[in-house]
Amino acid sequence: LDYNEILWEVAQTVEPQRGSGKVANYIPALAEVDPMNFGMAVVTRAGDRFTTGRADRPFSLQSVTKVISLTMALESIGESFWKRSGREPSGDPFNSLVQLEHENGIPRNPLINAGALISTDVLVSRYGRDGAVEAILQFAQELADGEPVRIDPRVAASERETGFRNAAVANFMRSFGNLHNPPDDVLHVYFHQCALEMSCQGLARAMLYLANGGVDPITGRRIVSERRARRINAIMLTCGHYDASGDFAFHVGLPGKSGVGGGIVAIAPGQLSVAVWSPGLSPQGNSLVGTMALEKFASLTGLSVF
Amino acid sequence: LDYNEILWEVAQTVEPQRGSGKVANYIPALAEVDPMNFGMAVVTRAGDRFTTGRADRPFSLQSVTKVISLTMALESIGESFWKRSGREPSGDPFNSLVQLEHENGIPRNPLINAGALISTDVLVSRYGRDGAVEAILQFAQELADGEPVRIDPRVAASERETGFRNAAVANFMRSFGNLHNPPDDVLHVYFHQCALEMSCQGLARAMLYLANGGVDPITGRRIVSERRARRINAIMLTCGHYDASGDFAFHVGLPGKSGVGGGIVAIAPGQLSVAVWSPGLSPQGNSLVGTMALEKFASLTGLSVF
Amino acid sequence: LDYNEILWEVAQTVEPQRGSGKVANYIPALAEVDPMNFGMAVVTRAGDRFTTGRADRPFSLQSVTKVISLTMALESIGESFWKRSGREPSGDPFNSLVQLEHENGIPRNPLINAGALISTDVLVSRYGRDGAVEAILQFAQELADGEPVRIDPRVAASERETGFRNAAVANFMRSFGNLHNPPDDVLHVYFHQCALEMSCQGLARAMLYLANGGVDPITGRRIVSERRARRINAIMLTCGHYDASGDFAFHVGLPGKSGVGGGIVAIAPGQLSVAVWSPGLSPQGNSLVGTMALEKFASLTGLSVF
Amino acid sequence: LDYNEILWEVAQTVEPQRGSGKVANYIPALAEVDPMNFGMAVVTRAGDRFTTGRADRPFSLQSVTKVISLTMALESIGESFWKRSGREPSGDPFNSLVQLEHENGIPRNPLINAGALISTDVLVSRYGRDGAVEAILQFAQELADGEPVRIDPRVAASERETGFRNAAVANFMRSFGNLHNPPDDVLHVYFHQCALEMSCQGLARAMLYLANGGVDPITGRRIVSERRARRINAIMLTCGHYDASGDFAFHVGLPGKSGVGGGIVAIAPGQLSVAVWSPGLSPQGNSLVGTMALEKFASLTGLSVF
Repeated sequence: LDYNEILWEVAQTVEPQRGSGKVANYIPALAEVDPMNFGMAVVTRAGDRFTTGRADRPFSLQSVTKVISLTMALESIGESFWKRSGREPSGDPFNSLVQLEHENGIPRNPLINAGALISTDVLVSRYGRDGAVEAILQFAQELADGEPVRIDPRVAASERETGFRNAAVANFMRSFGNLHNPPDDVLHVYFHQCALEMSCQGLARAMLYLANGGVDPITGRRIVSERRARRINAIMLTCGHYDASGDFAFHVGLPGKSGVGGGIVAIAPGQLSVAVWSPGLSPQGNSLVGTMALEKFASLTGLSVF
Repeated sequence: LDYNEILWEVAQTVEPQRGSGKVANYIPALAEVDPMNFGMAVVTRAGDRFTTGRADRPFSLQSVTKVISLTMALESIGESFWKRSGREPSGDPFNSLVQLEHENGIPRNPLINAGALISTDVLVSRYGRDGAVEAILQFAQELADGEPVRIDPRVAASERETGFRNAAVANFMRSFGNLHNPPDDVLHVYFHQCALEMSCQGLARAMLYLANGGVDPITGRRIVSERRARRINAIMLTCGHYDASGDFAFHVGLPGKSGVGGGIVAIAPGQLSVAVWSPGLSPQGNSLVGTMALEKFASLTGLSVF
Repeated sequence: LDYNEILWEVAQTVEPQRGSGKVANYIPALAEVDPMNFGMAVVTRAGDRFTTGRADRPFSLQSVTKVISLTMALESIGESFWKRSGREPSGDPFNSLVQLEHENGIPRNPLINAGALISTDVLVSRYGRDGAVEAILQFAQELADGEPVRIDPRVAASERETGFRNAAVANFMRSFGNLHNPPDDVLHVYFHQCALEMSCQGLARAMLYLANGGVDPITGRRIVSERRARRINAIMLTCGHYDASGDFAFHVGLPGKSGVGGGIVAIAPGQLSVAVWSPGLSPQGNSLVGTMALEKFASLTGLSVF
Repeated sequence: LDYNEILWEVAQTVEPQRGSGKVANYIPALAEVDPMNFGMAVVTRAGDRFTTGRADRPFSLQSVTKVISLTMALESIGESFWKRSGREPSGDPFNSLVQLEHENGIPRNPLINAGALISTDVLVSRYGRDGAVEAILQFAQELADGEPVRIDPRVAASERETGFRNAAVANFMRSFGNLHNPPDDVLHVYFHQCALEMSCQGLARAMLYLANGGVDPITGRRIVSERRARRINAIMLTCGHYDASGDFAFHVGLPGKSGVGGGIVAIAPGQLSVAVWSPGLSPQGNSLVGTMALEKFASLTGLSVF
């Protein structure tokens, strides 16, 4: 497969749609991003890299970071994590409290906000409030292997100012005893985690371990066990796009995780990781053009797991 | 009607049940209360007072205060209050978030926690954070007409420490734009309001205006218009006991409001107000023996509105 | 009180709104009714009758009959009825299945469709399928004391043809074991019951026993015990208007029951019963002008129970 | 890979658990099945077959047939099918009505009961009531390529007698206009479809087209397009095990569909199809030992798509 050509064709295909969708506007730093941005990067298991568009422009990872904190939380407390979070698709929007109430404060899965707050809480228990922010940043930097990674303090501050829904979720889980630290501490870390920034290149590079059975194929470093890598992929496939997860599986057929910054990372197990960025969102909060691009990519490469 | 004899018979009837139910244990100050306590007081429109048991012992009013803050909120912003709260029974427990999510942050009625937080928010907008606490205390004291009224700071502090569910509700409504002040400020006032203490005598005296078309029959002071008094009574009847409101109407047949401190106040429009206190609660959070006492009282007096 | 004058003033007040609201259109027999119809009738405990508008024109009672079948079911099996139905406001539309699923097939109250199907099922168990239709008709005729009462077979047939939601509810409750007879039999009786027709005069006359402690004040016949009459009134007040029950209590302040045929009956305990008919409905399925008329009536007479 | 050895090891692994779980008992024909039964069959794309246990014993396919009727419905009306059903995991039990009410009668996906009734309805529209039963049987027989396939009329009759929940679902969707035929006709076909019987051998053989891009690799016959085959697999992975779909993806990592008869079929795209049968069920209604067997199988073969 000639990935340069494939990415070129993908870019051509989505070009007429570029700019469509609705840019997240709940915080200024996201609202100001030009919707015409589009970038995409592939990193293969062999370490080859291919890009198109603004693949080196950093963007706000937002919920894409839920895969990073899940990985860290699983490494911290192992399978006992699953006593505090399910791993079923939620069938609900990303920030619903209904399911939490019906199921005693146990979130459906770690890729919705409630579940990601559990991951964060695990990290606060381990590293403390400020230590957890530092640990997440450092882990992301290690994964990115030299690609730039930073936390935008302005974004973190904005998240905090508008994050009443997340504060509701955190307090609600705390009321069920499923948050072990003060909600404000967990939210502090969570908002900083959401404010992580990478480019498509960095993101695809960082997630490569999930395409290679848990081992970073370039550094040779084992990040997670093979079994855990497969399981994280499974959760991304069933839960990675909120209440459009089934649709993403249907159209793209790859494990993936989206964020309201317009980024999506997807994994072709055994082959490659691919990241795309386009800020306009679907009503479910997933990158509209990014999803199209990945659908075209999966179709051209035949990399769907199905 | 000889109310002394009636109260005596009521007390006799509930005596075998005294102490039953489960005392609220989420905060120490409530958990320590002796479940054997029982008191009851009637104040008629003519100003006559009748009591039985520990009718002069102050207890934590808790949700009974929702009627007080509703009255104040309605006087502050009038009927526009109903843009921010419904007046339908919720069919849900007192602290459910499900309905809030389905109805965009508009609580079903002002006598569940969410709705009472709206009342409180209105008062914070008007009086400021500390001013609102002061205003509520002062209004309660005026209504009580010399009967002791105080806020127990230990209770308020405990409510705050354990009030994660209320914090969730406040943040959730704020996320929908239906809270105008910072959740922490509104919660501060709300927790102090819940910590109001009166005796049965004081409570029955304070609520007498609702039995007299909005005018305090003893002082002659108009508290609310006749129409508003009727409407507050209507809301108490349909919504005053959470998801046991229908049952209270069925068994007692009077507008009433309960609190987890074990108090209930009920209104016989045109006749009297009656307050009862017994700390043991039903699974729905209403005083078990207090409800029995009011059922017997309504049966002996024929005062049911139906 | 001069009820002739009061009814005249009520009619004047609603005149500009006459015809507003949306006539039920799910079956032809209802859809064809002229929305400009308006009638109202009062029958006092003393037997005096007052009317305005088309108070002698029969209309389809629809859900108003739920009070009749509840009365019959309670007389059949007594308080054990409450093992099969709650008596709490539902907080949901009249035909919701959500609550049934969450509460194992036990309807919230007997005045929503699900609960009324329980009443009907009780009658099928007692009288058989055809016998139950006959028994309901006969009981309604006795209550109406000579005023015309009939079942419109065309309406019953139409209900059946379009009654998929009710069929869903009946089958659903049967799946929980809370329906004892074949769903088709229960639905047959239910659809015939809904097709009962009376005029405002007949309806107000028929329900008079609820305004007089369970005894028909004109014939002297005891229909239900005083206690049961009060309780039926309590249920009407808290549950009689679906998810607008709180609003009806707030604005009118009388126990009442509405039907999609545009009729409402209301009870002023100890005083009178009043029926109104105007086919245009509110979004919640209650007569729009009928509710206005009752609000004005309650305001002019001061008969609100609050 | 030596599949004989692998199946032998799988059988050894689950042997201590054989008989665990709870056999479906809502109809006699299922309740009578010996819980100690266990069978498993693999058919590879090359046409090689491997079995262990009672792989040739026919069992009731039940919900496994939802994949067959979905395939037929998609071939009948193409992508317009997705106007009448979603393709998102439901997050609810297989027979919930809650989601249907909140989403206007559109089922979440075609592998829960509600969605499968839509598939059936499509076939009734095309073939008529009796023709649809015949068409489903014939299609299943073609897929099974000589392996025995029959409909057990006793099971179909039992399903009908106890199928009140399904009748509720069908009537409910009809009330939203999302069922085009009389509920009784659709239910007739649905209950016969559920009563289809095959052995593990037959089932694995029949589903082989999904492991080979839509073409039966043995007969060379194209059943569905490659794209549709992938998409059906995607839906099986995200939705094939009700509210344990995420767990199946997590543990097994293969598209699969279970039935309350204790059967599960799973697809390793590009490789093979595998069927397992063990009647004891998990609380979610999926074969307990069957799921364990598939987890072991996936682990030994490394065939997880992740």
